[in-house]
Amino acid sequence: MVDPLKQPKLYPSLFLGKNEGYISFGAGQPDLPPPKEVYDDLHLYNSFQYGLIRGEQKLREKVAIAHKVQPDDVFITNGASEALQLSLYACQGKSVLLTKPYYYSYPPLVEFAKKQPVYTNLVQGKINYDNVEKKLQNKEADAILINSPANPTGCVETPTTLKKIESLTHDLNIPFIFDEVYSDLIYQGEHYSPRKENVICIHSFSKTFSLCGVRVGYLYTKNAELLQQMADWKTHTSMNTSLYSQAMALNTFKVPPSYIKKQLTIWQERRNHMAEGLEKIGLDFWSPEGAFYVMPKVPNPTKFAEDMFFKHKLICYLGEWFGAPQRVRFSYATTVENIEKGLKIVEKYLATK
Amino acid sequence: MVDPLKQPKLYPSLFLGKNEGYISFGAGQPDLPPPKEVYDDLHLYNSFQYGLIRGEQKLREKVAIAHKVQPDDVFITNGASEALQLSLYACQGKSVLLTKPYYYSYPPLVEFAKKQPVYTNLVQGKINYDNVEKKLQNKEADAILINSPANPTGCVETPTTLKKIESLTHDLNIPFIFDEVYSDLIYQGEHYSPRKENVICIHSFSKTFSLCGVRVGYLYTKNAELLQQMADWKTHTSMNTSLYSQAMALNTFKVPPSYIKKQLTIWQERRNHMAEGLEKIGLDFWSPEGAFYVMPKVPNPTKFAEDMFFKHKLICYLGEWFGAPQRVRFSYATTVENIEKGLKIVEKYLATK
Repeated sequence: MVDPLKQPKLYPSLFLGKNEGYISFGAGQPDLPPPKEVYDDLHLYNSFQYGLIRGEQKLREKVAIAHKVQPDDVFITNGASEALQLSLYACQGKSVLLTKPYYYSYPPLVEFAKKQPVYTNLVQGKINYDNVEKKLQNKEADAILINSPANPTGCVETPTTLKKIESLTHDLNIPFIFDEVYSDLIYQGEHYSPRKENVICIHSFSKTFSLCGVRVGYLYTKNAELLQQMADWKTHTSMNTSLYSQAMALNTFKVPPSYIKKQLTIWQERRNHMAEGLEKIGLDFWSPEGAFYVMPKVPNPTKFAEDMFFKHKLICYLGEWFGAPQRVRFSYATTVENIEKGLKIVEKYLATK
Repeated sequence: MVDPLKQPKLYPSLFLGKNEGYISFGAGQPDLPPPKEVYDDLHLYNSFQYGLIRGEQKLREKVAIAHKVQPDDVFITNGASEALQLSLYACQGKSVLLTKPYYYSYPPLVEFAKKQPVYTNLVQGKINYDNVEKKLQNKEADAILINSPANPTGCVETPTTLKKIESLTHDLNIPFIFDEVYSDLIYQGEHYSPRKENVICIHSFSKTFSLCGVRVGYLYTKNAELLQQMADWKTHTSMNTSLYSQAMALNTFKVPPSYIKKQLTIWQERRNHMAEGLEKIGLDFWSPEGAFYVMPKVPNPTKFAEDMFFKHKLICYLGEWFGAPQRVRFSYATTVENIEKGLKIVEKYLATK
């Protein structure tokens, strides 16, 4: 087996279906099956000529209604990953403000877009607004990219903080890229979606409907010029998003709201087991409020993660891949049984240190 | 309707299903339906967790057998577009040699990869090897990207020319990106796929199996280092290629060889009608040998294309979008009836000039 600890960038693919006998606190995706509605009518699709670069009209209309925007504001992409790539590429400027810890794709995506990442340190897992304000007003960055609920911290930013960033960036005429792919998975706190003209919201069908491998995400913004630039770029780099994948995404609008509520109950239970277990072990961590991640502080995280993987068959991600070198990232996208088993392994291991 | 002549980059999407009553010599895709086998077993797929970044193993094995390479040499992408993007990004160097005329996505893709395009002029639609040799030996470019059968010229390069470029670039240790997405559509001449370590071949399921909108392409190369760089990049920009789309692509290996032969007969007939019609009108053009394009020279091409579109409901592409400002591009990816009708419109129009 390839050593995943030497290959952080390939982590998601290395761990898929390859680790029988392992407990995974690594996965960045739901383990639950997609809702049955996603398969509806797929057999009716029988022509696969090029689709619209910005996405099929029917899907954009459904997304627009869901987010109270116009269909023309919506742009369908190859997962949220491509939405991030397009947004960063289309924005003017030379630097982008990121939080630290950050989602591990953010710094490379900023660099691929020929820009420099600039960081603001989270305090107890949350944005320090004063520091963001200072850095943006001092022109240390020309744009900002944040997520809430956040991967890797599991924290949810308050509507107050998000509204302040929205106003500030709007006043400064700075693009505000807001990644809200986990907005349906909140256990504590409240989600707020900014809507001013300088905002690009990034979303996905992957996490809510367990469709990660189908690769359909989207963005919406009122900035028509940015949308045009993104369309120009996507025309050359990938053309339309797979029409079959878009058909599945369209079907998710048939899924009743009770499905999401039921999922949330499952995630909440897992979250509670994880949080209570970490509390019991006595680890320092930020209370998980959304998504399915938590970042405990552990002594010697690299050795910890290596020992967990090579000696104890427990997968976890190194915090240093997310800009948090004193921590590891645990995902609770697994069964309560696995969460309990995994936590026992951690407890036993740390007791001997 | 948006004026497509002002929006060259959006052309493919603007013309899809939007132009009832128009005859299209514009389309860069087959009008024929996909083979029935592509729908096999799709209902058996019921889990859509992230897939492997380089593509599903079963599909890579089938591709490897088809091209007589190893599965580890194969990398599945969101259409040939993403394969081109990844290849250009992964190659070292500051400039890429392209032919002129070129496929219209090549110059922007080179620029997005932070490189400069350098051009070698085609002579009668064909590569002038001496000029290529001179430019590469003089280090005017660090890599070369060509296609055969070529979009937009419809010409097929001889195995002799391709072997000479292969040897030259291998000796100079320069990446040779070879786009062969139309290799199943050759009416005159012979296809040659280079295989040396410096070569990246780009391929697709789109043109052979009428699956453009499903977005599955691939590349294969023996250069493991380049493949790793591409995987690192795709991990952040789009993750795996849609699993549903890959399932359809896998099904194309069940399609009997007789299907491709039958398709070729249809294309050959269309090609003959187009070539004979242009001959009859007396236009200057390069004999169409592969793919489904031909580039006649017309007086005042911009006015010609505008008049065709706005006054005569015939769609064609301006040669200037492909670096051939004295010409237009006609696609014969339409019925013989439409080809005849369209050519009559052209003949009548030119007779009055």
